[in-house]
Amino acid sequence: MFEKTTFDSEVFCSGAFRNYVETAMPVLVRYLDCNIPKGVNVHDPSILTEMARELMVGDTGAPASFDGVRFCRILNLYMHTGLFVHTPGSMGRQYSGTFPLAAVTDMVSSVVNQPCSFYEASQLPCVAEKIMASELNRFIGFDSSRFAMLTTSGGSLANLTALLAAKNHKYPGCLSGGLSACCANGLPAVAMGEDAHYSLVRVVEVLGIGEEQIVRLPLNEKRQIDVNRVQETLDRAAVSGLDVFCLVASAGTTSVGAIDPLEELAEIAQENNLWYHVDGCHGASLLLSDKLRPLLEGIGRADSISWDAHKMMSVPSPCSLLFYKDRETAGGAFRQEASYVFDREPAIYSEYEGGSMNFECTKRPMIMNLWILWAMHGRTLFSARIEQLCALCMESYHILLENQDFEALHSPQTNILCFRYRPENLPEKFPYSLFQQEIRKRVCCAGRYFISKTDIAGEAALRVVIMNYGHTSDNFRELLQEIRKAGQDVIFEYKNISN
Amino acid sequence: MFEKTTFDSEVFCSGAFRNYVETAMPVLVRYLDCNIPKGVNVHDPSILTEMARELMVGDTGAPASFDGVRFCRILNLYMHTGLFVHTPGSMGRQYSGTFPLAAVTDMVSSVVNQPCSFYEASQLPCVAEKIMASELNRFIGFDSSRFAMLTTSGGSLANLTALLAAKNHKYPGCLSGGLSACCANGLPAVAMGEDAHYSLVRVVEVLGIGEEQIVRLPLNEKRQIDVNRVQETLDRAAVSGLDVFCLVASAGTTSVGAIDPLEELAEIAQENNLWYHVDGCHGASLLLSDKLRPLLEGIGRADSISWDAHKMMSVPSPCSLLFYKDRETAGGAFRQEASYVFDREPAIYSEYEGGSMNFECTKRPMIMNLWILWAMHGRTLFSARIEQLCALCMESYHILLENQDFEALHSPQTNILCFRYRPENLPEKFPYSLFQQEIRKRVCCAGRYFISKTDIAGEAALRVVIMNYGHTSDNFRELLQEIRKAGQDVIFEYKNISN
Repeated sequence: MFEKTTFDSEVFCSGAFRNYVETAMPVLVRYLDCNIPKGVNVHDPSILTEMARELMVGDTGAPASFDGVRFCRILNLYMHTGLFVHTPGSMGRQYSGTFPLAAVTDMVSSVVNQPCSFYEASQLPCVAEKIMASELNRFIGFDSSRFAMLTTSGGSLANLTALLAAKNHKYPGCLSGGLSACCANGLPAVAMGEDAHYSLVRVVEVLGIGEEQIVRLPLNEKRQIDVNRVQETLDRAAVSGLDVFCLVASAGTTSVGAIDPLEELAEIAQENNLWYHVDGCHGASLLLSDKLRPLLEGIGRADSISWDAHKMMSVPSPCSLLFYKDRETAGGAFRQEASYVFDREPAIYSEYEGGSMNFECTKRPMIMNLWILWAMHGRTLFSARIEQLCALCMESYHILLENQDFEALHSPQTNILCFRYRPENLPEKFPYSLFQQEIRKRVCCAGRYFISKTDIAGEAALRVVIMNYGHTSDNFRELLQEIRKAGQDVIFEYKNISN
Repeated sequence: MFEKTTFDSEVFCSGAFRNYVETAMPVLVRYLDCNIPKGVNVHDPSILTEMARELMVGDTGAPASFDGVRFCRILNLYMHTGLFVHTPGSMGRQYSGTFPLAAVTDMVSSVVNQPCSFYEASQLPCVAEKIMASELNRFIGFDSSRFAMLTTSGGSLANLTALLAAKNHKYPGCLSGGLSACCANGLPAVAMGEDAHYSLVRVVEVLGIGEEQIVRLPLNEKRQIDVNRVQETLDRAAVSGLDVFCLVASAGTTSVGAIDPLEELAEIAQENNLWYHVDGCHGASLLLSDKLRPLLEGIGRADSISWDAHKMMSVPSPCSLLFYKDRETAGGAFRQEASYVFDREPAIYSEYEGGSMNFECTKRPMIMNLWILWAMHGRTLFSARIEQLCALCMESYHILLENQDFEALHSPQTNILCFRYRPENLPEKFPYSLFQQEIRKRVCCAGRYFISKTDIAGEAALRVVIMNYGHTSDNFRELLQEIRKAGQDVIFEYKNISN
């Protein structure tokens, strides 16, 4: 069973690497050079499967050798069936075209392949994490001798880790005895706004806390948590047998980009002795801008903050950061021992290792994408861009106000804008929600603009996220025109069917 | 606050991309061309921090422009402070040098930046997941009309997701009422071998199940779960008030690479009505080899299997796969709604979307690294390599047996080998464990070979993972020589101090 096999190491050599890079380069350059608005062409998955299968060599006896034509065809299929994130047509998601330098860094990281939880095998990523922690904390303002930062594979995992630390902090017996040993003061519960990200519900449920133990905080007209109604909601929860231990605020909700009143909520959390977590996955990046930072006033009072660099900072996905005010509590998220990874005695580099605070054992050195960008270009690379995106979003809002057949649903706080098309000739009987959804589908199908939808107060709305570096207000005007056309087509067809 | 800012989009253009690639190429080629054994040079983190800080532009007024020299220096620092995974000196971890094609694919993925939980924005990755699911399931043997596969950011997350599905399957009320509503038949508990990976303890604790509710199954002399003692252990657990709902087997333990008796454990799991999870993160890759597949006999009876393609398949980290026998139970891991991502009505592509089964919302399209390798080179690219690694490990074991001053701790089942250096002149009083640790430290410091240590039966042992494509048995012989020298140095110094 263990007889020796000869293995052709040609596929591992630098020659193979060079061949593949040289094949990929012109394809990628063409892709990056495209700047006309393009959304996405959605293909029937069974047809796409057939196309993909045709590009595979099949189960041959020996590994096939380099085939540039095949590789080129695969890359083209990949790019042309995806969202054209580098064009201003991509307005539907919170990610966008990335800085090309970060893409090159990703290639380097995949060659050197150093999962970065432990210093010994991944020194520069560990050091880069510390450097970025201190660079970014300048704008948060945590006590630099006590705070901690780690990277996680996505914002959901950052939120999970933070809430885990919160739970173990509040219920020290939980790690040994389990959650059911922690119900002396009522069922452990978490409070969050009505618009909190869906991953937070997942996170709470993962932790063994039921959905019935999620206390939803009502919103004000700006779709922020209504600070005037938090205390009464918490009081009612306590009466009904819940032991709320954590309050989650959103700094940039996913649906409309609203930033909860962070300072006031900090006050309430402190008064009620709650762990205060700020889900800043979307909006924490505003901290980098001197102009926009005041929107996040109070964030420095959080116990933990999650922050996605893969959203407004245009780093490839994922690159999530989790900040803790106090590294002692951060270390409480996990407890375990593994003799093949953890040393019992602390080494000089122990404090540079995130392994004991991280859920991941094998973690991509995603910090390198962020640190190298920061090292090469400085903070203004990000702050200028973020200011531009928010300004463009505000400009889009004003354009919307000028167009009477559109209904703006909020004044944007960040780079997300939600609205509805409400023409005068919309038949009364036509369900308004369905109308928006149908418009969205048609606009996307046209292939020029990709926008998303969200439900606001139970009714569908159109949603744009201004994310693209090439985006101008003309693009937004053109989008409104496309929406108008799609909407009028729907009305025309509806009237024809009704008659 | 929202006034317009001009943002220099030069850093986003294809010219910048070309500049960075052309700078990185020669550095990476030199790195890949190095084939003398090299381990790692561990630097003092404060000195490395200074070196890294010196390469940063600082907080300038405007983003700095392209600087090839700076970029080159950063890359060199990255590579030369890391583990030299592409040389045969890298023998300490379960990851290694990757296929260069996968690194290029990673760069492409970072340019097109399509987080891959939803078909609409990430069509080819969704289709590639389905294709790889069916390609790989040929070797597992799940019912193709019922099984499901998804990718996760690392093996820990794969194990977490599987155990979450198990918990929700066994306790349907948990999602609403929380774990404390699920204790009618005793405290929810999980059974796993003494050598199960440390992440499994984390996972169980994350779910709100305490460490006291982990039932450890004793091992046999091969360090596999001892099937003859499982039932009595489960019975004892029941008597003590635990409601075991899940049995975890390891297919390749991290410490010694032992594969639990999967078929017999399947039988026990079935008899006791337990969810049967196989942690195949390390060893499931053996399925790809016709020669080695029999070692995993019985894996097809699992309810869920985790499988890391970033270990023996040499795909960049992470690329973890999670298989479920039944997609219905897979869907039970999570429950939530988000109007901006999930559509209420199923579309033709709904079954191609992993979003509802995945913890991650924003997930890297890691499947592309695997699929493109598979598409371009076929299965034998992997199977030939895995056979070579296992054969080399067995050969190393035989070399070890020929050397009387070494103690082999097991006959390897995969590509991991643990042993101790036990020379005749080792002073009786010298703690044996400390001796191995000191040897390991010195061998690593010498910079030629990077090996790891693990505790076996409470005592430290040296551990090598045969992972490198350029590795030969001469490397292992040379390593033994280095160990001998380090060990004799330690003894010499000890005797001098004692006298």
